[in-house]
Amino acid sequence: MNFRLESDSIGSKQVPMEAYYGVQTLRAAENFKITGLGMSMEFIKSLAEIKKAAAITNNEAGLLEKKIEEAIVKACDEIIDGKLQDQFIVDPIQGGAGTSMNMNANEVIANRAIEILGGKKGDYSIVHPNDHINYGQSTNDVIPTAGKMTALKLIPKAIVELSKLYDAFNEKSKEFDDVIKMGRTQMQDAVPIRLGQEFKAYSSVIRRDISRLEKAKEELKVVNMGGTAIGTGMNADIQYFNKIVPNISKISNIELKQSSDLVDATQNLDGFVVVSGVIKACAVNLSKIANDLRLMSSGPRTGFGEINLPSKQNGSSMMPGKVNPVIPEVISQVAFNIIGNDITITMAAEAGQLELNAFEPVIFYKLFQSIETLTNGVNTFVVNCVSGITANRERCKELVENSVGIITAICPHIGYKKAAEIAKIALNTKQSVRELILEEGLLGEKELNDILDIELMTKPGILAKELMVG
Amino acid sequence: MNFRLESDSIGSKQVPMEAYYGVQTLRAAENFKITGLGMSMEFIKSLAEIKKAAAITNNEAGLLEKKIEEAIVKACDEIIDGKLQDQFIVDPIQGGAGTSMNMNANEVIANRAIEILGGKKGDYSIVHPNDHINYGQSTNDVIPTAGKMTALKLIPKAIVELSKLYDAFNEKSKEFDDVIKMGRTQMQDAVPIRLGQEFKAYSSVIRRDISRLEKAKEELKVVNMGGTAIGTGMNADIQYFNKIVPNISKISNIELKQSSDLVDATQNLDGFVVVSGVIKACAVNLSKIANDLRLMSSGPRTGFGEINLPSKQNGSSMMPGKVNPVIPEVISQVAFNIIGNDITITMAAEAGQLELNAFEPVIFYKLFQSIETLTNGVNTFVVNCVSGITANRERCKELVENSVGIITAICPHIGYKKAAEIAKIALNTKQSVRELILEEGLLGEKELNDILDIELMTKPGILAKELMVG
Amino acid sequence: MNFRLESDSIGSKQVPMEAYYGVQTLRAAENFKITGLGMSMEFIKSLAEIKKAAAITNNEAGLLEKKIEEAIVKACDEIIDGKLQDQFIVDPIQGGAGTSMNMNANEVIANRAIEILGGKKGDYSIVHPNDHINYGQSTNDVIPTAGKMTALKLIPKAIVELSKLYDAFNEKSKEFDDVIKMGRTQMQDAVPIRLGQEFKAYSSVIRRDISRLEKAKEELKVVNMGGTAIGTGMNADIQYFNKIVPNISKISNIELKQSSDLVDATQNLDGFVVVSGVIKACAVNLSKIANDLRLMSSGPRTGFGEINLPSKQNGSSMMPGKVNPVIPEVISQVAFNIIGNDITITMAAEAGQLELNAFEPVIFYKLFQSIETLTNGVNTFVVNCVSGITANRERCKELVENSVGIITAICPHIGYKKAAEIAKIALNTKQSVRELILEEGLLGEKELNDILDIELMTKPGILAKELMVG
Amino acid sequence: MNFRLESDSIGSKQVPMEAYYGVQTLRAAENFKITGLGMSMEFIKSLAEIKKAAAITNNEAGLLEKKIEEAIVKACDEIIDGKLQDQFIVDPIQGGAGTSMNMNANEVIANRAIEILGGKKGDYSIVHPNDHINYGQSTNDVIPTAGKMTALKLIPKAIVELSKLYDAFNEKSKEFDDVIKMGRTQMQDAVPIRLGQEFKAYSSVIRRDISRLEKAKEELKVVNMGGTAIGTGMNADIQYFNKIVPNISKISNIELKQSSDLVDATQNLDGFVVVSGVIKACAVNLSKIANDLRLMSSGPRTGFGEINLPSKQNGSSMMPGKVNPVIPEVISQVAFNIIGNDITITMAAEAGQLELNAFEPVIFYKLFQSIETLTNGVNTFVVNCVSGITANRERCKELVENSVGIITAICPHIGYKKAAEIAKIALNTKQSVRELILEEGLLGEKELNDILDIELMTKPGILAKELMVG
Repeated sequence: MNFRLESDSIGSKQVPMEAYYGVQTLRAAENFKITGLGMSMEFIKSLAEIKKAAAITNNEAGLLEKKIEEAIVKACDEIIDGKLQDQFIVDPIQGGAGTSMNMNANEVIANRAIEILGGKKGDYSIVHPNDHINYGQSTNDVIPTAGKMTALKLIPKAIVELSKLYDAFNEKSKEFDDVIKMGRTQMQDAVPIRLGQEFKAYSSVIRRDISRLEKAKEELKVVNMGGTAIGTGMNADIQYFNKIVPNISKISNIELKQSSDLVDATQNLDGFVVVSGVIKACAVNLSKIANDLRLMSSGPRTGFGEINLPSKQNGSSMMPGKVNPVIPEVISQVAFNIIGNDITITMAAEAGQLELNAFEPVIFYKLFQSIETLTNGVNTFVVNCVSGITANRERCKELVENSVGIITAICPHIGYKKAAEIAKIALNTKQSVRELILEEGLLGEKELNDILDIELMTKPGILAKELMVG
Repeated sequence: MNFRLESDSIGSKQVPMEAYYGVQTLRAAENFKITGLGMSMEFIKSLAEIKKAAAITNNEAGLLEKKIEEAIVKACDEIIDGKLQDQFIVDPIQGGAGTSMNMNANEVIANRAIEILGGKKGDYSIVHPNDHINYGQSTNDVIPTAGKMTALKLIPKAIVELSKLYDAFNEKSKEFDDVIKMGRTQMQDAVPIRLGQEFKAYSSVIRRDISRLEKAKEELKVVNMGGTAIGTGMNADIQYFNKIVPNISKISNIELKQSSDLVDATQNLDGFVVVSGVIKACAVNLSKIANDLRLMSSGPRTGFGEINLPSKQNGSSMMPGKVNPVIPEVISQVAFNIIGNDITITMAAEAGQLELNAFEPVIFYKLFQSIETLTNGVNTFVVNCVSGITANRERCKELVENSVGIITAICPHIGYKKAAEIAKIALNTKQSVRELILEEGLLGEKELNDILDIELMTKPGILAKELMVG
Repeated sequence: MNFRLESDSIGSKQVPMEAYYGVQTLRAAENFKITGLGMSMEFIKSLAEIKKAAAITNNEAGLLEKKIEEAIVKACDEIIDGKLQDQFIVDPIQGGAGTSMNMNANEVIANRAIEILGGKKGDYSIVHPNDHINYGQSTNDVIPTAGKMTALKLIPKAIVELSKLYDAFNEKSKEFDDVIKMGRTQMQDAVPIRLGQEFKAYSSVIRRDISRLEKAKEELKVVNMGGTAIGTGMNADIQYFNKIVPNISKISNIELKQSSDLVDATQNLDGFVVVSGVIKACAVNLSKIANDLRLMSSGPRTGFGEINLPSKQNGSSMMPGKVNPVIPEVISQVAFNIIGNDITITMAAEAGQLELNAFEPVIFYKLFQSIETLTNGVNTFVVNCVSGITANRERCKELVENSVGIITAICPHIGYKKAAEIAKIALNTKQSVRELILEEGLLGEKELNDILDIELMTKPGILAKELMVG
Repeated sequence: MNFRLESDSIGSKQVPMEAYYGVQTLRAAENFKITGLGMSMEFIKSLAEIKKAAAITNNEAGLLEKKIEEAIVKACDEIIDGKLQDQFIVDPIQGGAGTSMNMNANEVIANRAIEILGGKKGDYSIVHPNDHINYGQSTNDVIPTAGKMTALKLIPKAIVELSKLYDAFNEKSKEFDDVIKMGRTQMQDAVPIRLGQEFKAYSSVIRRDISRLEKAKEELKVVNMGGTAIGTGMNADIQYFNKIVPNISKISNIELKQSSDLVDATQNLDGFVVVSGVIKACAVNLSKIANDLRLMSSGPRTGFGEINLPSKQNGSSMMPGKVNPVIPEVISQVAFNIIGNDITITMAAEAGQLELNAFEPVIFYKLFQSIETLTNGVNTFVVNCVSGITANRERCKELVENSVGIITAICPHIGYKKAAEIAKIALNTKQSVRELILEEGLLGEKELNDILDIELMTKPGILAKELMVG
């Protein structure tokens, strides 16, 4: 391999001749071999959008020659188009508050711009990573802004999948609207419900999650570009200061606002904590639903057996014919992953000191993973599970009719104490509640039939006020 | 002690003669000796408000005699006034989805109403805990609703204290607006900032927390009263169903809405997760600020020594004269407590099954504690710390003048590479940056003076475009 | 109320005349109104044991007059006997690394000793909180040591209850050894198991937890007494230094060792993290078992219905006859609480800075609560749940015979592919596996009977090697 | 691309002709596109070791033909040598309790064995993934065993790096043994300490972590091979049952034991929780140390400035000459990551149901990442930070001499109250403690010199008993 020699404050170092990244990137890649993973592709694109906007803004402010600006813009556009991704070699978990990510972008863009201008990589007299690409900026405004932009790009993808899940549950709620089944509280027989009501509830909860995610985006739209190193805006030209955020918005198609308190916006990452909290709430809901589906589909012979999940793969390497609820299982694991990520994000946000929080990299790594695994998990949930669920109507009905829980409907008519006695006898003798009520002459047959209309039991409204106790 | 004999489905049991609670409460108290603590006072009052509203609503619906209703209302009013609190004896961590809390309220109110009507405690033929007090309700709509109401009463108290904190930081930001000091990123000298800017940032972050808490209240205003056992509204009279929530709102002065999907609202506790997440974000911010104050007040002789926290108590049992940042320290501990509580709340919410989440009690216990300790912590933070902070102006100024960080201001004028060299020499030789720049003839004295105006360094806008690199 | 005037470095302050605590305690109580709770009783006793040992050791070293020593010892003995607990008024969550707890002990003991010597409370010329009670000590060695001692007293109580739980599960495993039931993996029918095997597994896991807790105690036995403020032992007399730990061991009956690196032992609290981690693992196991019991007892008519938990209280305020798994439910909540506490403990331990971790108070608060709620939870688990569990033998057997899972036993004899086909047909047609095998002539009747011996299916060992595939 | 047609219980599906994996793997890869990552290489090798051992054991038991056994062993050896890794295509986060990982291994090994025997991939009549490769096994014993083996391979690598860290700290503790500096508690000046003592404490804590990790390995050595589906050992030949674990041990060079309760060992994952807890404690310690290093190296001009960390990269894209503590920063992020992972592992372990915990995949994903990032983080910590730390001796000494904290040494000689007064005056007047003591005639000059010997202050032992108070 051929090398070129580059130097920085630390000293000189050989950089692969063909590399677009430079000495600072290389040092960082060596210092931080932590996860072995690469940076998020969307994050790299967000960095390029910022750098492009900065070049344009600096030129508009008379701070950057047109020729250089054009080369930078071209280089950035290539990255935005998905090129040069392999030149971003620093680990997502890294020290230095993201300086290495920022310098990786600065160096790649500078070297590509140098090439565009006919120079040779490494000849920073033509385009300089710090003096041109990073002009007017600091890692400390670039990196949090890129992080917010990335999350703002990823969240809508999650919302798209959640919307499909909402639709799927909604669809099923209609399909199952007339399936009467036993409701259970605390795993014990309670009172009847329609399966459609259960799936409607799932759709309601997902709609709420979507709405929260929409609102949570607001947390991320306020950025600190222009604040430079610590939010005081030192070294930021006023014209640049005023135009940089609108220009990023235009380029990225993301509506951003410059914070009214840039010092605050530079040192505090609580917005990411809130967003992670909302994603966590969504994960909680998904896992609860997944668990319900596992319970309702338990069996096929020795469980609840109320619904069937689509068979997506052999369930067992040893037990023939076994089909497992693998998709709900992966959903719960996605949820556990997100909940753990939330703690990492929380601790990293808490650990900020004075003018900066240096722990953004791990926050971004975890947050992006949370959003992306949520998106992917929900996608497979819809396609490979929810949309193919079927109901075992007969089984559901049989369980209701066999249950003692319908005594609750009779309770307002005979009082809690008497009702509890009947329930106890029914369970011990295996006689039906209906028989016992009639046997003891507690209610007449017609009355009882009216009360025991299972369909009506799944709605508010009791029948006969005159019968009530007291 | 004298006893009366009461019985339930489990059997008979002696209850202390003077007790307002009954057999079910007593069993629960014996089954759940977990924390040894009592239920939240605000929660008990919320229960009484619900029971009062239910009695009134049932009467309006023609389902409860006026005489009984009046006795119930009177009993509830006593509880709302703070009486009978010692009759609520069940542990805040309890099995049974809060049935024990609900029955404790039902029994206490029934027995007090019986007394009011001239009967003897335990004579449930006069007023019955289930058939009268709990009429039209279920633990499963009463308890989550009471939990939400309680949080809605506690959050405003937190907001009051946070608003005082906002004011205190704001006040200090004005007082310290002209205190120039060194900004630090990653614990390393960065560029100058005014101490007032730092305190302004603290006020900005607290304002954001307040605004989030205000919004988070919306999560709690949607309740499931009328849904009864599993949200289907079984056994709920239609008139009661329609009026119960408005009546609770009127009585409690809390604006509540009945959920449009009561099945969802009965089984899902994600709203509490979101609220806890917002409180957690506030805790993260408070702990970060507390940590900053500890750093800035470190010393008195061997630390940063930029500010002084008020002395609130002897700092050491062994080291005379030592004064420690005890209030910021308690703030961080409050934060760690809240962050841990959030995990408990999250896990409990995730563990819901089918038509109900049985783990509300631990969610309430933790959430109420989070809000209350936040409130108490912020109170002492304002009173015993923030409002008494003073600045060491001379020390702050001295540190700036002694630092190398001001090289950053010169960087746009001489380029990053040259600036980095000067910085390195300055650090090694202990010469000042100013001297070195003049010595090397990089800038003229007037120019340099303009650039090195520290006050201007804390604001955006660079001076001399013509001098810039490139 | 009458007052006496006391003063410290902060100034003068009125202390209630009858109070044994003094000015420093009172300031702390005012500064830290956080939880409204009191300090752990065992912790207070541990403090008294340390103070007693210190007085004796100082006297032995010629550093404390016999007369004063005797008064201090007597005062400490009273506290160890459970007296004066109401004089410990500081909040468990407090700033100052526990200085307030330590001074509370110092002041109460000093004032009680003054009384014993015939003086008046507040006359510290007779016995001084710092110069006598705290002599040779620092908050920074006293408080972590008291915390460890307290945990070492609480853990054995947890072990006692866990041992009862082990016995109860073991007992049940014998009782249920011949109850054949269907095993389930991923909530789907798997292969047969004996109920006794399941309960045996529960006992195995609890035995493992006990063994871990026993080992975890080792983490706590190494203390830093003698290290004084920062572990360097400054101001500690050599004789005192060498004897203080053995003397505490003797007095408290807890075998302690002085750390070989007192600087480390003073600043690091990782031992508490490990202990909390072990308790957390135990909580995880308990919650899993509790969840299993809820699943197996689900029903009574529409669930698994394999076992019955004892009825401990009415299950519902609305649904007559409903009995819920309230004890397993409280166990899971105890577990969620402990898991949340673990995060608080972890964060507090991580936040230590330089020579001390100031966040011990919240660690102790959470850790003691974790151990105590575990102890209490397990107690009610044994008494009110596990020991009264009964099996529904017929139901268990019926489910096995009705299941398709027994195909797995046949698999080694006919191959996975063929077995999977049979299973699929059985599920679709509701024919039995046995019938299908015979119908297709895959195995002879005798052979099949041998293979389908359910009892044998619950043990290793396949029958007929000659029949195997390949 | 060419395809072959394979089929399973779900139906037929085209598999790329050249693929060693089969239809079940492909379905899983499609069902679980969650993280986009691959399985751990060590985990794949562990699977191959198990499969190799199973083939050998089955052959020894007369259950597998020699020819097939040999082909399987050869295929496994190739995988153990690092080949065929690209054929393992399932996502580390997957539903199905690891069936997909297991089947991926079964299919790859089967197809490679088929090739070795001269057959064509997909011709499972030659070697069958279930009937031969998986013979006598179940996902439910293979996967947890492979997980434990993997952790047992990864932990020693972490211990190697931690041992280097121990050495590095130890080395530094000797180098810095004579560097007197100010100790700080709660960020406030306390009493003198030697820098070497601080680094010695760091080495002590790391030694403790190593010892815990060594012990934690015991948690993982007990495996459930032979238990098959649910630990009952169904379908396991007795000879195989008795030999499989010793054979795996022999092949893998890891000493494993078969659990004495295989039902327990199949359904419970608490061992992973404990191991994660120990890793978490190590992370807590590392982050605390990293934070200390950031504090002590804060500056260079406006912080503590006691030590210098090696410069590893430019600290800022904007601030020339800035060097940041990037390695300690990445250590804290590694710690936050591990602490979050611990929560995921805990929740997944808690979520086990009945005979199996289906959430192993996410536990493995997180646990392996925790161990590997710890290993990598510690490696860079040693190489790029700790081993190059230097002390600023003069600065350290100056700070001690300038401080008031030495009053503590005088306290036993003049009493706490007097000492506190002197300290207060010293701080206010900026006079030195020495001057004030002499001025007030509290001690003679020689006495005072003896007491104020800073070197002696860092060790136990006070000088003059006759001077003590009381």
